[in-house]
Amino acid sequence: MRKELDRIKHSSTKLTVVCAERGPETIESTYDEALAIQPTLEFVEKANQEGYDVVVIACFSDPGLDAAREISRIPVLGIEETVLHIASMLGARFTILTPLSRLIPSKKKHVHTRALDHYLASVRAWGMTVAETEAHPHRAKKNILKVAREAMDEDGTEVIVLGCAGLAGYSENLESELGIAVLDPLSVTFKIAEAFAELGLRPSKVGLYAYTLEK
Amino acid sequence: MRKELDRIKHSSTKLTVVCAERGPETIESTYDEALAIQPTLEFVEKANQEGYDVVVIACFSDPGLDAAREISRIPVLGIEETVLHIASMLGARFTILTPLSRLIPSKKKHVHTRALDHYLASVRAWGMTVAETEAHPHRAKKNILKVAREAMDEDGTEVIVLGCAGLAGYSENLESELGIAVLDPLSVTFKIAEAFAELGLRPSKVGLYAYTLEK
Amino acid sequence: MRKELDRIKHSSTKLTVVCAERGPETIESTYDEALAIQPTLEFVEKANQEGYDVVVIACFSDPGLDAAREISRIPVLGIEETVLHIASMLGARFTILTPLSRLIPSKKKHVHTRALDHYLASVRAWGMTVAETEAHPHRAKKNILKVAREAMDEDGTEVIVLGCAGLAGYSENLESELGIAVLDPLSVTFKIAEAFAELGLRPSKVGLYAYTLEK
Amino acid sequence: MRKELDRIKHSSTKLTVVCAERGPETIESTYDEALAIQPTLEFVEKANQEGYDVVVIACFSDPGLDAAREISRIPVLGIEETVLHIASMLGARFTILTPLSRLIPSKKKHVHTRALDHYLASVRAWGMTVAETEAHPHRAKKNILKVAREAMDEDGTEVIVLGCAGLAGYSENLESELGIAVLDPLSVTFKIAEAFAELGLRPSKVGLYAYTLEK
Amino acid sequence: MRKELDRIKHSSTKLTVVCAERGPETIESTYDEALAIQPTLEFVEKANQEGYDVVVIACFSDPGLDAAREISRIPVLGIEETVLHIASMLGARFTILTPLSRLIPSKKKHVHTRALDHYLASVRAWGMTVAETEAHPHRAKKNILKVAREAMDEDGTEVIVLGCAGLAGYSENLESELGIAVLDPLSVTFKIAEAFAELGLRPSKVGLYAYTLEK
Amino acid sequence: MRKELDRIKHSSTKLTVVCAERGPETIESTYDEALAIQPTLEFVEKANQEGYDVVVIACFSDPGLDAAREISRIPVLGIEETVLHIASMLGARFTILTPLSRLIPSKKKHVHTRALDHYLASVRAWGMTVAETEAHPHRAKKNILKVAREAMDEDGTEVIVLGCAGLAGYSENLESELGIAVLDPLSVTFKIAEAFAELGLRPSKVGLYAYTLEK
Repeated sequence: MRKELDRIKHSSTKLTVVCAERGPETIESTYDEALAIQPTLEFVEKANQEGYDVVVIACFSDPGLDAAREISRIPVLGIEETVLHIASMLGARFTILTPLSRLIPSKKKHVHTRALDHYLASVRAWGMTVAETEAHPHRAKKNILKVAREAMDEDGTEVIVLGCAGLAGYSENLESELGIAVLDPLSVTFKIAEAFAELGLRPSKVGLYAYTLEK
Repeated sequence: MRKELDRIKHSSTKLTVVCAERGPETIESTYDEALAIQPTLEFVEKANQEGYDVVVIACFSDPGLDAAREISRIPVLGIEETVLHIASMLGARFTILTPLSRLIPSKKKHVHTRALDHYLASVRAWGMTVAETEAHPHRAKKNILKVAREAMDEDGTEVIVLGCAGLAGYSENLESELGIAVLDPLSVTFKIAEAFAELGLRPSKVGLYAYTLEK
Repeated sequence: MRKELDRIKHSSTKLTVVCAERGPETIESTYDEALAIQPTLEFVEKANQEGYDVVVIACFSDPGLDAAREISRIPVLGIEETVLHIASMLGARFTILTPLSRLIPSKKKHVHTRALDHYLASVRAWGMTVAETEAHPHRAKKNILKVAREAMDEDGTEVIVLGCAGLAGYSENLESELGIAVLDPLSVTFKIAEAFAELGLRPSKVGLYAYTLEK
Repeated sequence: MRKELDRIKHSSTKLTVVCAERGPETIESTYDEALAIQPTLEFVEKANQEGYDVVVIACFSDPGLDAAREISRIPVLGIEETVLHIASMLGARFTILTPLSRLIPSKKKHVHTRALDHYLASVRAWGMTVAETEAHPHRAKKNILKVAREAMDEDGTEVIVLGCAGLAGYSENLESELGIAVLDPLSVTFKIAEAFAELGLRPSKVGLYAYTLEK
Repeated sequence: MRKELDRIKHSSTKLTVVCAERGPETIESTYDEALAIQPTLEFVEKANQEGYDVVVIACFSDPGLDAAREISRIPVLGIEETVLHIASMLGARFTILTPLSRLIPSKKKHVHTRALDHYLASVRAWGMTVAETEAHPHRAKKNILKVAREAMDEDGTEVIVLGCAGLAGYSENLESELGIAVLDPLSVTFKIAEAFAELGLRPSKVGLYAYTLEK
Repeated sequence: MRKELDRIKHSSTKLTVVCAERGPETIESTYDEALAIQPTLEFVEKANQEGYDVVVIACFSDPGLDAAREISRIPVLGIEETVLHIASMLGARFTILTPLSRLIPSKKKHVHTRALDHYLASVRAWGMTVAETEAHPHRAKKNILKVAREAMDEDGTEVIVLGCAGLAGYSENLESELGIAVLDPLSVTFKIAEAFAELGLRPSKVGLYAYTLEK
C-alpha cells in the first residue's frame, strides 16, 4: 500500500502509514468492522494533535468514519465513501467487487447509508478471503476479471470499484483488459485527500460533525 | 429502567439488566456510540453462551446492532429500530425527540439507514443533556411537552417517539396531555422482545447476519 | 387458524375468531380484497363496542386497514403490514411468497404503499390457488420450498414471508429445511397484538386515523 | 358537474352521469372512501356490459380504482390519479387543496401510493366540509385563494390541484387571480378520458389488472 | 408521421408538421439530442408568435423540453414525458423499447429525471439504428416482438412503450400479438395535446417555467 | 477566475481558460443553459484533439455535461456535479445559494437528476443577477451572508455551496464569518480535476458515455 501511494503522491506530500496493533487483521464482517473503530479513532485523534492536514481511513468499510469526523478538526476521508462519489462521475452505474459473497448485503447497506443507491448496478464477490487474495494474486485477478465481466454483461455496469484496500496497483491492468473504468479506492481517495488538504476543506463543525461535548 | 420493566414483564419472563463498566456514561454523540459498541458486543456474546432467549440493547442509537446480530444465535433488538417500526403502525408520521439539537442530523441519518424516512415527520430536541434530564425530571417534562406540541402544530406529526432509554415511565402521562400516541422505546421493545422469544424468531444466519468467519 | 393461535397465545388472552358471512371466500385479487372491506369494518366496529383490546385482520392483504383504524379506539393490526415490519428486523431483505403469479404486482404495490420497498428482495408465487393449497398441503409445501430456494439463490433473500393467512403452522418446518427465517404472518401478528394490548398502544386519533365526522 | 362536462365535451361524445343510491353522501375520510368502493365497482361492471368506451370515477380519492381496472375491459380513470400526472407536466411541483385538514395525511398517502411524491409541494386544507363548500361558494373561493397563496409563498408550489370533484368550473377564475395553473380534476380527467377512448387505450390485462379468476 | 396524425386528429384540429433543416438526422445519443435543442427552441418561439395552441416535440428524448416551456406561453408536450405518464395508468410497470443498447442507460436516466422510476420495469433494445428500422420494417417488427416478449417474461412488464417517434402506426398490431398495452408515443401525445388545447392548460409561469429575463 | 485558479493550481499544471464567443453572457435560465451547450461541446472536442488531460465546464449548471462525456476520451468535470459530491462528504446536508429565486426549482431539479436529493437541505437565492453580483461585490457578500444564515437557522444546513462560477475567492472569507464549510465550486472542481488527471481517470466508454456513432 505504502509503495503504491509513494508512487502517486505529490513530491511535497508527507505520508505516514499506520496500522493498529490490536483490532482484527482483516475486515470481513460487520463484527470485524466494529472492532476496528476504536483503534481508528485513536489514530484520528493523534493525527489532529500532531498537525496532519488530512486522514485517510484505508479500509473499504470506512470504520468509524462519522465518529472520526466528529472528533476531528482536519478532514477524514473514507476510501469507500470517496470512491463511490468519484465512480458516480465516470459512468451511469458502478459495481462493487467484494472478497466474499457474505459481504454483499453489507456492502449494499453501506451504499444505502451513503444514499448512493441510484448509482449501484450490483455488488459481486470474487470468492476469496482477503488473506487468500493476497497469497494468490494471480488467481485473484482471474476471479476478479470473471465477475467484472458478469457485472458488465448481466448488470449493465459501467464502472468497477475494487472493494478492498489491498488491491492498490491492480486497477490499471484490469481497466485495459475490461475496457471500462476500474477504480482502486485507496489511490483514488489518496489523491482526493491531497486536493482536500490543498483546498483547506474541513468537516463542518455544526450538526452531524459538531465536536462531542465534554462530560 | 429495571423497575419499569419489572412492572410490565410477563411473570414468567426472567429479566437480567446489565451495564458496561467501561464505555461512555451517556450516549450523546456518534463518538460515544462508537465507544459503546465493543462492551455491547461482549454482553451479546455472553447472553448467547448463557442461554438467554433474546437481547435488548437499551440505548437509543442501537450501538453495534448489526454486528451483534452477526455473532448471535438469539434475536437482538435495538430500541431505536424496534420503536420506529412500531410507531409506523400507529400514525402517518412520527417525530423523534432527542436530548440535544446537535443530535438531530445523526437521528435523521439513523432513520435513513433503517429506510424509514417515509414515516419521519421531524426530529426535535428538548434541549437538556441526558444527565440534566435525569436530574430535573420536572423541567424535562415541561420541555418535552413544548417541543412535542411544536411537532404537532408545525410538522404535522401523529406519534411521538421519546428518543432516550432513560424516559421509561414518562409516556403514559405525556400521552394523556398531548392526545396523541407517545412511545417509550424501552417498554415497547421489551414487550416485542418477549413476543420474539415466544415465537422463536431469530436473525437469519445468511447474508447480512451470517456468522463471522474464524480467522 | 384458531388451533394454531390457541397453541401460542398467553393463557390469559381471550381469543375470538370471526369470519364474515358475506364477502369473498378467498382473497385472490384486488377485487376480492375490495369486497372484503365492508364486512371487516363491521367487525372492527363491533370489537370496539364489545370491549376488545385489539383486532387482527387475518387476511394477507390487510383489507380496509386504514379505514378500520379511523373508526377504532383500539389498535387494529394487519397481518401483512405487521409481518413486513418484523421481517425487516431479521435479515437484510425478505421475499413474499404468494399463491398465484397474478398477485405479484399487487403484493409489490402493497409493499410500496407501506414504504418498505427497501427491504423487498422479491415476490414469488407457488402456483396454486388458496383452495388448492388447502386441499393439497403436501404439494403446496413442496412448491413453497422450491420457490423459496429460488428466492435465496437468485434474489439473495434472507427472510421468507408466507403471504397467506392459511399457512399458520407451516413456518417452523420450512425454516428448518431452508435454514433461513420463515414467517407465518398470522402467528407473528397475533403475538405482536398481545404486546400492543399489554402496552396499551392505540392508533393516534389525529391526522390519518382521526375519527370520521358525523354527517 | 354534468353541466360543466356538457360544456367541454366533444359534440360526438355521449356522456352518462350516474350516482350511487347507497354509499356515503360525501367522501371525507378513508372510511367514506371504503364504503364508496362497492357501488363504484357495480357501475364499472355495468359500463362494461353496456358498451361504454371509458369510465371516469368522479371522486377525488379514486375509490376502488385498482379493483375497477381488474374487472374492466375498458379504461377506468380516477380523477385524482389523472390530474396528478397532468399537473406534473405543468410545473415543478403541485399543491393539493383539500376540504378539511384531517384529510391532509390521507392525501399525502395517496400521492405516495401513486409514487408521485417528487412532484408534491404540499397538501393544504381550505377548512370547510364538502357540504359547506357547496352551500357557501363565495366563502369557499375566498378560503381557497388564501391557502393557494400560502402554498405559493411558503411551499413554492407552481400548480394548484383542486382536490374535490365538486369544484368543476372554479379553476379558470382562480387561475386568473393567482397567476399560476389551477386544475379542476374532473374537467381535466374528462378530456383525457375522451383521448383514451379515441386512442383505444385499455388497461393491460396481465399482472396488476389481470381479470379476476372465477371461483 | 403526418399521415398517422391526420388519421387520428379531430377534424377541427389544424396540424402543422415541421422538421429542422439543421440538426442531427436522427437522435441516437445524448450528443444528437444536444444538437437538436436549438432548432427545437426556434420552432417553439415561432409557434408562440404564430398563434398555435400547443406544441408537440416529436422526438423520443424530449430535447430542450424544459427550456421550451420556459420561453412558451402555450403548452409544450414531449412525447417521452407524456407517454410515460399515460403508461403509468395502464399497468403496474412499463418497458421502454429503444433502437440501440447503447441508449439504455440514457433512457433510464430520462425516466429518473421525470421521477417515474417506480413504474419502470426495464429498458430493452431491438438492436437496429433508426435508419435500419425505417428501411427494414418487417425485421424491426420481428425484433420488437422478440424483446417485448423477453420484457414480459423476464422483467414482468405490463406495458410496452415504443421509444421512437418513427413507429407511429405499429402499436395496434403489436398489441394484438402481445396481448398487452403497446403505446406509440407520438399518437398518444398528439391526442393528449388536443385535450390540453381544449382545456386551455398552459405551463405555469412561475418557478421552473417562468419566462427568462431580458438581458 | 483565471487569477484564482493560477493561485491554487500545482506549478506543473498547464491551465487554459476559454470563453465562448457566441452563447449567452450569463446562465440564468434553462434557456440560457440550452444555448450554452453547443459552444461547450465544441471546446470539449477541441480539448480532446489538442491533447489536454481534463476539461472543467466552469458554469454552475453543467451545460452539456453528459453529451460532452459522450464525445470525450478525457474526463470532463462539471462544477455543479463535482461540488455537490464533495459537499456530501463535509456535512449531513448542503444548501445551494443561487443568484435569483426563479432558479430555485431548476437547481432542485439538477440535484434530483444527480440523485443527490438526500444531501440537499435547501436552495436559497441572494436576489441579484449575475451581472449585479459582479458589479456590487460588497452588497452581494452581505446578501449571501444573510441567506446563508437563514439556511443554517431554518433549514439546518451544514455546508454552503456557492451556486455560481463567478464567486471564486469568496469562500474562505464567508467560511470564517459563518463558521461552517463554504464551497466555491470552481476551485473545488479545479483541484479535483488535477487529481483526475494525475490518476488517469476517464469516463467509461460503455453505456451512458459510449462514443456516438458515425452516421
